Amino acid sequence: MTAPSQDFHPGLEYARQLDTLDQLAAFRAEFVIDDPDLIYLDGNSLGRLPKASLQRLQTAAREQWGRRLIRGWGEGWYDAPRRLGDQLAGLLGAAPGQIVVGDSTTVNFFKLVMAALEFQGQRSAIVSDELNFPTDLYTLQNCIRLLGGRHNLTVLASPDGVHADEQAIFDSMDASTALITFSTPTFKSGFLYDVPAITAAAHRTGALVLWDFSHGGGSIPIELDAWGVDFAVGCTYKYLNGGPGSPSWLYVRKDLQEKVLSPIGGWWAHRSPFAFDLDFTPAEGISRFLAGTPSVLSLLMVEPALEIALRAGMPAIRQKSVALTGYMAALVDHSLAPLGFSLGTPRDPQRRGSHISIRHADAYRINLALINEMKVIPDFREPDNLRLGLTPLYTTFEEVWEAVQRIAAVVTEKRHEKYSQQRSSVT
Amino acid sequence: MTAPSQDFHPGLEYARQLDTLDQLAAFRAEFVIDDPDLIYLDGNSLGRLPKASLQRLQTAAREQWGRRLIRGWGEGWYDAPRRLGDQLAGLLGAAPGQIVVGDSTTVNFFKLVMAALEFQGQRSAIVSDELNFPTDLYTLQNCIRLLGGRHNLTVLASPDGVHADEQAIFDSMDASTALITFSTPTFKSGFLYDVPAITAAAHRTGALVLWDFSHGGGSIPIELDAWGVDFAVGCTYKYLNGGPGSPSWLYVRKDLQEKVLSPIGGWWAHRSPFAFDLDFTPAEGISRFLAGTPSVLSLLMVEPALEIALRAGMPAIRQKSVALTGYMAALVDHSLAPLGFSLGTPRDPQRRGSHISIRHADAYRINLALINEMKVIPDFREPDNLRLGLTPLYTTFEEVWEAVQRIAAVVTEKRHEKYSQQRSSVT
Repeated sequence: MTAPSQDFHPGLEYARQLDTLDQLAAFRAEFVIDDPDLIYLDGNSLGRLPKASLQRLQTAAREQWGRRLIRGWGEGWYDAPRRLGDQLAGLLGAAPGQIVVGDSTTVNFFKLVMAALEFQGQRSAIVSDELNFPTDLYTLQNCIRLLGGRHNLTVLASPDGVHADEQAIFDSMDASTALITFSTPTFKSGFLYDVPAITAAAHRTGALVLWDFSHGGGSIPIELDAWGVDFAVGCTYKYLNGGPGSPSWLYVRKDLQEKVLSPIGGWWAHRSPFAFDLDFTPAEGISRFLAGTPSVLSLLMVEPALEIALRAGMPAIRQKSVALTGYMAALVDHSLAPLGFSLGTPRDPQRRGSHISIRHADAYRINLALINEMKVIPDFREPDNLRLGLTPLYTTFEEVWEAVQRIAAVVTEKRHEKYSQQRSSVT
Repeated sequence: MTAPSQDFHPGLEYARQLDTLDQLAAFRAEFVIDDPDLIYLDGNSLGRLPKASLQRLQTAAREQWGRRLIRGWGEGWYDAPRRLGDQLAGLLGAAPGQIVVGDSTTVNFFKLVMAALEFQGQRSAIVSDELNFPTDLYTLQNCIRLLGGRHNLTVLASPDGVHADEQAIFDSMDASTALITFSTPTFKSGFLYDVPAITAAAHRTGALVLWDFSHGGGSIPIELDAWGVDFAVGCTYKYLNGGPGSPSWLYVRKDLQEKVLSPIGGWWAHRSPFAFDLDFTPAEGISRFLAGTPSVLSLLMVEPALEIALRAGMPAIRQKSVALTGYMAALVDHSLAPLGFSLGTPRDPQRRGSHISIRHADAYRINLALINEMKVIPDFREPDNLRLGLTPLYTTFEEVWEAVQRIAAVVTEKRHEKYSQQRSSVT
């Protein structure tokens, strides 16, 4: 596919030309799309429903739960956290046996922070940044409280709201550093940190790294093993299309697994869950990071969606993601900058995930007008970010073009001005 | 309904007579039952699929996720943990605003143990018993490790394998006791502790109580508020029929809520989740015990099942439960005791939940023969418990009678002897 920056043209024909060249175009038909005129740009918050998932859900509920009843546990439920983890490993650059799926991202992040801090003993410093997803910062603060307050958390500033300075990250680490942890891509600005460089720098000081790839799974190339990542988490309901609140994945590097313990060692983390021993003995390997019984129906929904992403392949997904975001950025410059929008996402595709944030003083109300009147669904993030999630598996270039026209129309027609600034969103 | 103990007869006609008197008989038709000859006695492990749940699942997936996409969060998803908690409160004797549904039982138990121990400061003793579900004991052990090992856990023995001596529980508590925690009904023996008496005794010493009602929700009358319970948890996939691994509920007494904190304070525990503040401020009320995004599809499955139980009403459910278990116990005495079985469940209905455990040296192999050859599905719990879960909403008296005949047939025909003692169960 030709990079759109080279022969960009702001007209609809160019968008259609890009669609004809799109090697992933056929994947759109694998998703439920009832209204082709509705432009869904929130796949970075909740991915679309794969048709195969509907069928799988029916099988899991009607046939397995309904007919096989408790026997379902022996027929694909019990090993699902590990099986899905190993499948996901194919998208995340990990050898098998290092990823499990289950619990929420918050709970998994908590497990890994506590495991890392326990392992690090007297090291007391934790480094993150203000672009980290807040649940991670909250969890860090709560972990520090639990452990008696002897740790200190440095939250690096982001002067431009796009990213923290990487040199400041390198400079923040020393022999007291226990853990550094960031989200990448960042949830507001879609910025990609240099994961291998930061990970290597952390290791030189003896710090451990925990990356939150919630916006990265299924959207950017990730090489957990090659990058030497210690711990990672991510959700499965964004670009991985696992459905609302589908369980999270966590990764613990193989050679660390026997050296660390989860804080929540329930029966699923036990070496012999069905022996019902009275004493806890941690499972060997990644299973020790499970806790209790997973939500099977939500868990199983991850699998058909994952199969689609694996079939498309990360190189093709990334290539289209770069093309979509590059095209969107060019259209923003051409059509929306004159209307008071600025790009809140890096121009360098190497530093960019799969959503484009555009910033506008009235972004909150523009978002409401787009949803209520224009059949465009982006989302809003404080204070002024309109996030436009571009999902390579189903977003078309024509949708990108059309969305920009509708965003422009909201502003030129002043459609947003009738809405209140009073915040009421739950998404 | 006449109590079966008064005019018990071991014949099939008596079972059928009990079925004709069953005021809950019509509820059986609300569940998917493909094969009426399959006797499902594991509803205490995974309840049957309500027909209404299938419909709800289709709506949640196809209509909400598929068509409404991210807007589903504003249309019944976001408030589901609290809404379901308030509905469940009607079965658990709790005023609204004290229960949320989400996360696994293990994770919720962990939250409450950590909250209780933090609140209790220097009090260092924890009391439980060896009949507690092992995940609770494991979690207690892991909490003690996390908190530096300054707590000590007393696990009271159960000489008969049915229950710990309640006097020993009373005697175990003193001014050093931080927390006492038991499962009731107990998972192997179905024993009911005297919750109000133990709770009151704990309070007299300044201890807090945490009850695990996983086997009690939807099967026994529970009065959380009237009994003065501090903390409680339970699963929703047993007698509450929420589906495989459906999320757990937790209860924190109203006047404790502002005094305690969850260890896992993620964004769903924040006062303003969508403000994306950098600092954690706990939500007011029970929401502070949420963590991250719940698994929506599994969560929503709890609701139609709960509506069935609420419609049946706890008094009628309990009445039938007592009748079913009493009838089963009488049949065990009559037909199975001569074959080497003994009752592992209290004879006093006031001390009994809704399953009957029968003990036999060959219980493991008998369980396999029942499942593989006899179309009876109980389950097995080490070392010698065959658990027979009797679910008032769909188990019939004739099924109880027929199950006993088939169990007897396995032993008299020595069908179990071809199976290995080697354990391989995953349920």
